[in-house]
Amino acid sequence: MAVELVERLEAGKAAEIMEELNSDIQADVIGELDQQDADAILAEMDAQEAADVRQLVAYDDHTAGGLMVAEAFTFRESDTVGAVLHRFVTEDDDFERYRGQHPYIVDREGRPIGVVSLRSLLTSRRSAKLTDIMTKPVTVAASESLDALQDLFDKYPFLGLPVVETNGRLVGVVSRAAVDDAALERAESEGLRRHGVVGDELRSMPLTVRARRRLAWLSANVVLNVIAASVISAYEETLAAVIAIAIFLPMVSDMSGCSGNQAVAVTMRELALGLVRPIDMARVWGKEASVGVINGVALGVLIGIVAWIWKGSFFLGLVIGTALALNTLIAVSIGGVVPLLLKRIGQDPAVASGPLLTTITDMAGFFLVLSLATAMMPYLI
Amino acid sequence: MAVELVERLEAGKAAEIMEELNSDIQADVIGELDQQDADAILAEMDAQEAADVRQLVAYDDHTAGGLMVAEAFTFRESDTVGAVLHRFVTEDDDFERYRGQHPYIVDREGRPIGVVSLRSLLTSRRSAKLTDIMTKPVTVAASESLDALQDLFDKYPFLGLPVVETNGRLVGVVSRAAVDDAALERAESEGLRRHGVVGDELRSMPLTVRARRRLAWLSANVVLNVIAASVISAYEETLAAVIAIAIFLPMVSDMSGCSGNQAVAVTMRELALGLVRPIDMARVWGKEASVGVINGVALGVLIGIVAWIWKGSFFLGLVIGTALALNTLIAVSIGGVVPLLLKRIGQDPAVASGPLLTTITDMAGFFLVLSLATAMMPYLI
Repeated sequence: MAVELVERLEAGKAAEIMEELNSDIQADVIGELDQQDADAILAEMDAQEAADVRQLVAYDDHTAGGLMVAEAFTFRESDTVGAVLHRFVTEDDDFERYRGQHPYIVDREGRPIGVVSLRSLLTSRRSAKLTDIMTKPVTVAASESLDALQDLFDKYPFLGLPVVETNGRLVGVVSRAAVDDAALERAESEGLRRHGVVGDELRSMPLTVRARRRLAWLSANVVLNVIAASVISAYEETLAAVIAIAIFLPMVSDMSGCSGNQAVAVTMRELALGLVRPIDMARVWGKEASVGVINGVALGVLIGIVAWIWKGSFFLGLVIGTALALNTLIAVSIGGVVPLLLKRIGQDPAVASGPLLTTITDMAGFFLVLSLATAMMPYLI
Repeated sequence: MAVELVERLEAGKAAEIMEELNSDIQADVIGELDQQDADAILAEMDAQEAADVRQLVAYDDHTAGGLMVAEAFTFRESDTVGAVLHRFVTEDDDFERYRGQHPYIVDREGRPIGVVSLRSLLTSRRSAKLTDIMTKPVTVAASESLDALQDLFDKYPFLGLPVVETNGRLVGVVSRAAVDDAALERAESEGLRRHGVVGDELRSMPLTVRARRRLAWLSANVVLNVIAASVISAYEETLAAVIAIAIFLPMVSDMSGCSGNQAVAVTMRELALGLVRPIDMARVWGKEASVGVINGVALGVLIGIVAWIWKGSFFLGLVIGTALALNTLIAVSIGGVVPLLLKRIGQDPAVASGPLLTTITDMAGFFLVLSLATAMMPYLI
C-alpha cells in the first residue's frame, strides 16, 4: 500500500514523506519501486539517508542486513553517561527509532567495541566514561541468515543486536521484533507456497496476476497427472474386465496422498525447528516406515472390508486393501524423505514436495491396484 | 523435555529446580504434568510462587493470562526514581525476569495506575516521585485473545503490556516476544493440522501415539472418500462403455483439489491477517469465481486437448475439458468460502476445510465427467 501511494506522488513530495520513515521501511518501499522512480526519490532525499537506503536495498530480505535499521544509538570512546542522557533529552523525535537498542560504543573506524547495559546506565555517575562500564557486544554479520538470527535471539535475551559489515564496521541494528516478524511471515508464506500460491497473494491484487500465478503451478500439475494416469492407461484391459476397480482408484490415490502429506508436514516442521538435517534421511525413513506399517495395515483392512461388502467380492477387497497398505508405506516413506532430498539439492521443499509426492504415490498406487488385479484376475471375474 | 525431566525427579528436588524458572515456564511445565505430580511439586514450592503458578495454569494458553509472566516490576505510589534505581542494583538475580518491562506503579488495591518511561527515569532526579513522571498505562485483560494482543503490539511500540484481572488488579506482564512466539507456533501448527497432524507431532514421540493420531484423521477420510466414490459407482455402465474415462477421473479429482486448496490457502491467510471476516462470503466468492472462470477455461482447454490427442477422440476431450472447467469454478468457490463458513459455525477451518473441500469437489467432478459422458454417449463409442 505504501508503495502504491509513493508511486502516485511526485518525487520531491515522496522524498519528504520517506524521510519520516525508519530506514528499514524506506528500504522496503524503495526496493519495490521500479529503478527510475526509486532513483528520482533517492535524489531528492538527504544524501546520507539516501546512501543508507541504497545499502539496505542491496541486502537480501532474510538476512541481518535486510532486517536491520540503519539508525544505531552510537557513541564514541570518549563519551560519558551524561552524553547518553543528553541524547535522550535532545533527540526527542528520533528517540523512537532507537527503541530496544542500547548505547553502542564505536571506535574511530566505526567498529562496535562495547555496549552499555541499561542498569549500568541507571546506576553510574553522569561523569562515568562509557568505556569503563561497557561490556563486549555480541555482533552479527550483515549476511547472517534468518535461521541463525532466530538461534541467536533464542540464546541471548537481547532486544537488538548490532550488525557489522565484513570490515567490522557497524552498519545497523537488527531487532528481535523484526526477526520474529520475518519468521512469522516466512511460516505463513510457506503454507501458501505448498499449494502453489506464490508472491503472497491477496484478493486485493489484480485478477490477471492472481489467475496467472496460480495457473503456472496448476499447469505443471497437469503434466504430472498425465504421467500418473498413463499407468491406468496401460491396464485398460484389466479395468474393462473389472470395472469396479475404477471406483477405488481415486480413493487409493487420495488416501495415499493424505498419508504422505502428513509425513511431509512433520518433516517440514522438524526442518523449521532444526530437529532434522538433510543428511538424516535414513533415520527419518525408519521412523516413518514404522508409522507406515501400522497405518497401512489399519487403512488397508478398513478399505478392504469396505470394498468386499460394497461390491460383494472378497478378492476385490483383498486387492484394494493390499494395494493401499503397501502404498501407505511408500507414501509416508517418500513424504518423510522428499523434503530433505529437495533441501539437499538446493530446491524449495515447501513448493516441490507436494506435487512430487502425489505423482509418485499416484503412480505407485495405480500400479499396485491394477497389477494385483491383473494377477488375481481369475478370482475377480 | 523439561516435563520428562521433572517427572523423573522427586518432588523436593523438582521444586528446587522449578523455583529457578520464570513463572510462565513453571506454568507450562506444571500444566503438562499429571495432577498428582503437579500437586506434589507445588506443595514443596514457596507458597506465593505456587499460588502464582496455580493461577497461571488456569488461564487458556492463547490468552494474555496464559502468555504473561507473573513477575511484574511494580512500585507503590509513594516510591521515587531512587527506589527504582535501588531495585536495579539489589535485585541482581531477579533482574533478568523484568526484561522489557517498565516500572509499573500500582495503587493500594494492586491496580496499575501509571508507567514510567525509560527516558523519564534517566532524566529525572533521584528524589522525583514516580507519580509525578508516570503516564497512564495501556492494560490488557487476562482473557484477551492472541489476535487482540497481536493487534495491540502492532498499534503500540511497547515491549510489554501489564495484564489485569476483571477486578482491575495487576496479575502479570505479557511481553511482545511471548506474543510473537505464540503467533509463530500457531502458524506452524495450523499448517500441520491441515494435514491431520495434531498435537504438534515430533518423531521423538512414541510410535503408537504418532500412528494413532494420524490414523484418526485418515479414517474419517475413508468415509468421505467412499461417499465421493459412490458417484462413480452409480455410473458403472457409462464407465464400462468408455473405459478411457477411468483414466481421467483421478486427474479431474486431483486438479480440482489443487485449485480449491489454493483458494483455501488464500482465505486462511486473509483470515490470519484480519483482511476478511466470516461475513464477507459474497465478496470472497465473487473474487474467487473470477479466478475460477479464467483458470477453469485454461485448464479445461489444456486437459481437453491432452485427452483428445491421447485417446484420439475429440468428444472425449470435450467431456473431460468441460467437466474440469466447471469443476475448477466449483472448487475455488468452495475453497474460498468454506473456511469462512467453518469459522462462522465455530469450527477450526485449518482442520476441516481440506477434507470437506476434497469430498465435495470429488463428488462434483465425478458427477460432471460421468453425466456429461452419459449424455454424449453416442459420440463417444
